[in-house]
Amino acid sequence: MKPKSNKRNNLPAQTDRKRIVVMGGGTGTYTVLTGLKKYPVYLTAIVSMADNGGSTKILREEFGILPPGSVRPAIVALSNAEQALSDLFNFRFENGTGLNGHNFGNLLLTALTKQLGSFEKAIEAAGNILDIKGKVIPSTLQDCHLFAELENGTVIEGETNIDVPRHNGNLKIRTIWTEPAAKANPRALQEIKEADLIVIGPGDLYSSILPNILAKGMKEALKTSSATKIYICNIMTKFGETTGFDARDFVSAIEKYLGKGVLDYVLLNTRKPLASRITKYEKEKAAFVELHEEDFKGSEFKVIKKDVLRKQGLIRHDSEKLAQALLSLL
Amino acid sequence: MKPKSNKRNNLPAQTDRKRIVVMGGGTGTYTVLTGLKKYPVYLTAIVSMADNGGSTKILREEFGILPPGSVRPAIVALSNAEQALSDLFNFRFENGTGLNGHNFGNLLLTALTKQLGSFEKAIEAAGNILDIKGKVIPSTLQDCHLFAELENGTVIEGETNIDVPRHNGNLKIRTIWTEPAAKANPRALQEIKEADLIVIGPGDLYSSILPNILAKGMKEALKTSSATKIYICNIMTKFGETTGFDARDFVSAIEKYLGKGVLDYVLLNTRKPLASRITKYEKEKAAFVELHEEDFKGSEFKVIKKDVLRKQGLIRHDSEKLAQALLSLL
Repeated sequence: MKPKSNKRNNLPAQTDRKRIVVMGGGTGTYTVLTGLKKYPVYLTAIVSMADNGGSTKILREEFGILPPGSVRPAIVALSNAEQALSDLFNFRFENGTGLNGHNFGNLLLTALTKQLGSFEKAIEAAGNILDIKGKVIPSTLQDCHLFAELENGTVIEGETNIDVPRHNGNLKIRTIWTEPAAKANPRALQEIKEADLIVIGPGDLYSSILPNILAKGMKEALKTSSATKIYICNIMTKFGETTGFDARDFVSAIEKYLGKGVLDYVLLNTRKPLASRITKYEKEKAAFVELHEEDFKGSEFKVIKKDVLRKQGLIRHDSEKLAQALLSLL
Repeated sequence: MKPKSNKRNNLPAQTDRKRIVVMGGGTGTYTVLTGLKKYPVYLTAIVSMADNGGSTKILREEFGILPPGSVRPAIVALSNAEQALSDLFNFRFENGTGLNGHNFGNLLLTALTKQLGSFEKAIEAAGNILDIKGKVIPSTLQDCHLFAELENGTVIEGETNIDVPRHNGNLKIRTIWTEPAAKANPRALQEIKEADLIVIGPGDLYSSILPNILAKGMKEALKTSSATKIYICNIMTKFGETTGFDARDFVSAIEKYLGKGVLDYVLLNTRKPLASRITKYEKEKAAFVELHEEDFKGSEFKVIKKDVLRKQGLIRHDSEKLAQALLSLL
């Protein structure tokens, strides 16, 4: 099939559609994007380049490309292609001495990077193949790795070792950084500047959300953008990253890296899932994020308290409920 | 991009476009298809399922799929997609402990087979992505392997061991067969029945062309089809397959498997390349296929003698010259 020229991608900045930037990486960003995609807004996903696990690790090391892991779900979320094509993009090889564990989408992005000469061009070409609405932009174009220092001084190297803890997951993370220190992608900064609404999160706090903000220039761009800025707090904690966190802990971590007074809103879920749904998370040592309202008194941001819980299945945000809450801010 | 419904694929049999079936496998079939594609004809490629080398071998063994090796060039030949997309389909991973040597198109066909449940559906889906004009049909849907017995009685197993000889390449092939004995794909038989013109070759005689004819039912279908049938003889011999062959040897081998009186025409190249072009083939022990006109006296087919040589570069057929010669038979 011929690549349909995606006119939405070429709209001038002065379009009357509102411009929403969604910043994050994995499933949380996917959820926000799939909700917003149904509405007439101009969407940009800015995604983390810290991933270094599994298929992504191999492709980074052996082909020298930037990590495709966070790009893939954002492209699928924004895709208007038939289901089979986005399923194909997510297809994971499960046999084969050499192919086992590789996502087809990762291989596509690798082949396109080699063929077209840059990761950004590869994302654009993959976006055309999957007929995406909007843009997917890496938060940095530098090949860098994520580090974390725990409260006991231990230094952990690599997103995957933080994310799937190869350390005492009960210890809190004291600080994170990247090596080399990543510089923000100018295209990401431009999108932030032109945005009407910037949505940070939900998603893995230290391994997915904060690495975007770490990129040099990002914090300043977020501060000076006239966009409304909102952070969507996670519903469940993650072992090795946010064990024992309540809602205020999440927000405080964001404020630590972003600065106080930058966020206009914080969206907090009010609906606690049934115990039977929470029980399933015990084996991965994840817990429901409690909201203690008194912790938010006197905050510099407005707190939006809402039932944004998905009705059944995995304990995740509901994409439509999120979209409604976000669109009401435009 | 959305899959464009390929109306050409759904044309009823009673369309006034002539139906041409091209039977083969590799580069030769690619050349015939790219030439004919520019003209208003209905094209079907019937391709060999004997391949078992390199990337194909791994994917056959580890994912249990049919060999994608002959499907890929036929799809690329028939593609109307932008060059970048067909280049991507041919892209070969050249690094990576696990990915080295795999063609992206082979991986696409593997992922689609696993996702859609059949190799034929995978070919159709890949054909839609590459916006092909016409159809690509495997000559058999059976997982079978090619065997050859040499004139000294040695039995060689596997297409790739015949094609890239791991045997004394000066010895002639006495006979070939597949195990299990392949049954022809009913869709291939139907296309042969409905064809106006059937083009056999050019291409590797024993490892690419004849395996199609070996499939049970194929010979009979070719015999009974009212189509005009033509064999296009190779321009160069291939070490390990057709060493020392002249034009009549090629045609005799086809007749041995197809039966006498089936071919209506044989197309023989008359133009000998410059010695400087032929010299380059010495290291692979390939020679120009000589035409001794007296050998064709009293044949049951008509001989078309023509300059069908590509003007420069590799010694191959010229796709436009072939197309002109073939279209003149309709």
